Amino acid sequence: MATEVLRGESGLRGSNIDALFHPSSVAVVGATPKQGHVGYVIMVNLLGKFKGKVFLVNPRYDSINGVKCYKGLTDVDDEVDLAVIAVPAPVVPQVVVDAVKKGVKALIIISGGFSEVGDEGRRLEDEVRSIIKDSKVRVLGPNCIGVYNAENGLDTFFLPEDRMGRPPKGPIALISQSGAVAAAILDWASRRKLGIGLAVNYGNKIDVSESELLEYFAGNPNVKVITMYMEGLKYPGEGLRFLETARKVAQVKPVIVYKAGRTKASVHAVASHTAALAGDYEIYRGAFRQAGLIEANSVREMFDLAKALATQPLPRGKRVLVLTDSGGMGIQAVDTLSTLGLEVPELPETMQSMLRKYLPPLAIVRNPVDVTGSATDEYYKIVLDSILPTSYVDMALIVALMQIPGLTPNLVNYIIDAKRYGKPMVVVSFGGSALMEKFNDALENSGIPVYATPDRGARALWALVEYSRIRKMLREEVE
Amino acid sequence: MATEVLRGESGLRGSNIDALFHPSSVAVVGATPKQGHVGYVIMVNLLGKFKGKVFLVNPRYDSINGVKCYKGLTDVDDEVDLAVIAVPAPVVPQVVVDAVKKGVKALIIISGGFSEVGDEGRRLEDEVRSIIKDSKVRVLGPNCIGVYNAENGLDTFFLPEDRMGRPPKGPIALISQSGAVAAAILDWASRRKLGIGLAVNYGNKIDVSESELLEYFAGNPNVKVITMYMEGLKYPGEGLRFLETARKVAQVKPVIVYKAGRTKASVHAVASHTAALAGDYEIYRGAFRQAGLIEANSVREMFDLAKALATQPLPRGKRVLVLTDSGGMGIQAVDTLSTLGLEVPELPETMQSMLRKYLPPLAIVRNPVDVTGSATDEYYKIVLDSILPTSYVDMALIVALMQIPGLTPNLVNYIIDAKRYGKPMVVVSFGGSALMEKFNDALENSGIPVYATPDRGARALWALVEYSRIRKMLREEVE
Repeated sequence: MATEVLRGESGLRGSNIDALFHPSSVAVVGATPKQGHVGYVIMVNLLGKFKGKVFLVNPRYDSINGVKCYKGLTDVDDEVDLAVIAVPAPVVPQVVVDAVKKGVKALIIISGGFSEVGDEGRRLEDEVRSIIKDSKVRVLGPNCIGVYNAENGLDTFFLPEDRMGRPPKGPIALISQSGAVAAAILDWASRRKLGIGLAVNYGNKIDVSESELLEYFAGNPNVKVITMYMEGLKYPGEGLRFLETARKVAQVKPVIVYKAGRTKASVHAVASHTAALAGDYEIYRGAFRQAGLIEANSVREMFDLAKALATQPLPRGKRVLVLTDSGGMGIQAVDTLSTLGLEVPELPETMQSMLRKYLPPLAIVRNPVDVTGSATDEYYKIVLDSILPTSYVDMALIVALMQIPGLTPNLVNYIIDAKRYGKPMVVVSFGGSALMEKFNDALENSGIPVYATPDRGARALWALVEYSRIRKMLREEVE
Repeated sequence: MATEVLRGESGLRGSNIDALFHPSSVAVVGATPKQGHVGYVIMVNLLGKFKGKVFLVNPRYDSINGVKCYKGLTDVDDEVDLAVIAVPAPVVPQVVVDAVKKGVKALIIISGGFSEVGDEGRRLEDEVRSIIKDSKVRVLGPNCIGVYNAENGLDTFFLPEDRMGRPPKGPIALISQSGAVAAAILDWASRRKLGIGLAVNYGNKIDVSESELLEYFAGNPNVKVITMYMEGLKYPGEGLRFLETARKVAQVKPVIVYKAGRTKASVHAVASHTAALAGDYEIYRGAFRQAGLIEANSVREMFDLAKALATQPLPRGKRVLVLTDSGGMGIQAVDTLSTLGLEVPELPETMQSMLRKYLPPLAIVRNPVDVTGSATDEYYKIVLDSILPTSYVDMALIVALMQIPGLTPNLVNYIIDAKRYGKPMVVVSFGGSALMEKFNDALENSGIPVYATPDRGARALWALVEYSRIRKMLREEVE
């Protein structure tokens, strides 16, 4: 499998797992005209957005809001790739039997009321397991919020748009062990126009696991970075499989994980929440490191890092040019960079005297290069074009406080021009004016990640260096 | 002085330092009709907003934009409390001579071109020092951005409103060693409606130091929390004075400091930027701790903590009720709380069975109390009203993900009602919908601080526990 994954041609493309994300047709089992119900929200979202066929299934209706409704899955007079199931738990086994009979490729069981509620639910879960055992159908859930795919409009996140915004298409995929955390992340990302194009929550995972989802995203060419929110693994033996898969995936694309349930105090809470084993965090940490996963310390940090990894080339070394219009912000950047093991090398004297010629007398040309509060767009251009093409630095952290009166939105073009040097760049922009928002949006639309504070920008560069190291390490081991 | 400070009656109220913040009349020396110039922006801002008399001074004009202009400070036919000086550095000494002659109480020397540029500038600085030596006039600067006072409209931050928004009145004061950092903070705070009612940047500090500013804010009854952005102290002997002052001030109100220039790599950058001695960060850290300062690790964290300290009562112990509608978010909160030494105690069995009666079967009643994705506003009310009045917990961290369909903005009222129990509360709300923004705004307007992620909310509660400890420690030492 390693070679397949390396080529980005995982066997899972075109498999039944693919039907969870790219079905041609979807049946909503439990569609209903009752507003606010889960089956209603999913039905409305799919009818409105999904680029494929949608069938409604509910024995109680002949039609819902003018759309034909089938009594059962087996009554649908067309192929069904994916069935989304939102019916009471006790009814689920019969629906799964029908799905197998119908030849449905994949199921998303949204319904709760399984092992998370006790023995009766556990029995139902076992029943579903035995029904699917000898078939090829793949099952996501139960007790999950399902799948979001910005590309084809597949969306089983059963929250209306006014509660939860949907992010735009983009290169970031999210695998979340918590449904509510996934929903909150998508809502947050939509506001920031952050491209989480694919998201999935796997609930009680009686079949499809995080390992398979990881492997699937590795083979999906639209995905450039995989993010994971994880509380803990659940079943015996899962750990080894997960880590083996992660090692293979990390060779082809970066995987960032945020593990909650790190402390003794939260172990019980994890057990109550996802029935997972939070375990000893240090053991997880060590394993993540060995597997080549990049660890984040919060949900927000996970996407700070993802933004850079999705847009920037990998650096050849760890030397950073810090270019700033505020000495204070430059110092903060250097603090974090050097704490994280990156370097801010002093520039050679020849380079310093060259810069001195073109910059105003108060500018500081050592690195951090401080073009000061009297900066204009041109000063940034001069520094970027003089230093980035040289072999003195491997990447740039650019602080541009738009409060400085000499800066204009044209600065964006100079920064974008500097992409031609093929070195990673991140921009730090802090404030609240409309002018600044415009500046930030223009940069992010052109693939330059923007961070509010120097420590966040510095950490994003660290992630690039770290992934560079990981990929080298893993590929050397393969050879 | 300790007792005065303890009573909040610092001798500095009514002193000439007070004239830096609460003058009855201000003269703008270097007023000009030339748009974009520093003297122009300050003049326009003061004429437009300052609640007091404004005099323009510039020998080249009889009037500017229809307002009378005086040749020199001594020509003003009224008392001048404060002179804001924005003229070329070589002219500054003569202006200071005039100011002393005129009996002006305080000066803000905005002009750059002093010790930060070299020997000639250093000579000018010495000249100004010797002019003021035997007078009572107090000088802020030179090479500074001055003062912002939301209350009376005194505003020498020479950036137009479209570049830098101004925050509303409020209980937070900012003392910043960097002008650009201060400007960026105010711009950022204005967007978030964060009440930084007073801000000051002291530049080369030939006279008024951070110690005196700290002492002054301690005695200002409008200030509830003092925040400091610091790169390093500058003159020999300053350290002791600063720490003695800080110890006294920390007895009456919380002081939060963010120190930049923490690493060997940034020491040079600090020297170039503010000519300060970044020094060994561990020495600063130890001293901050002894002096009872609360340390933040970034500009943003400084205001996360300030928001809680400005609005919440101090807790009696360190036991936290975590109430959440998302198990995952609850776990993240517990992780940070316990890492910071706070406790999330299990609730007694009697309390748990009582909650079980009123909450749905899937709810988890141990603590974190998880009212789950089927939560309604009432579940929050039941938990808050049952647990907060008891002696089992000292404060609450409330996670309310507004993606959950059962929640409405009315939840705000239940949370506000719970203020009557006299225990600190913070709310974690993560997402991006308009509904969420409304919810967050309503809470913050009622004095309940809101944080986007559980780790930030947890850290805010930590700051309350920490300040509680500090105040006890310092007051016991005084007795």
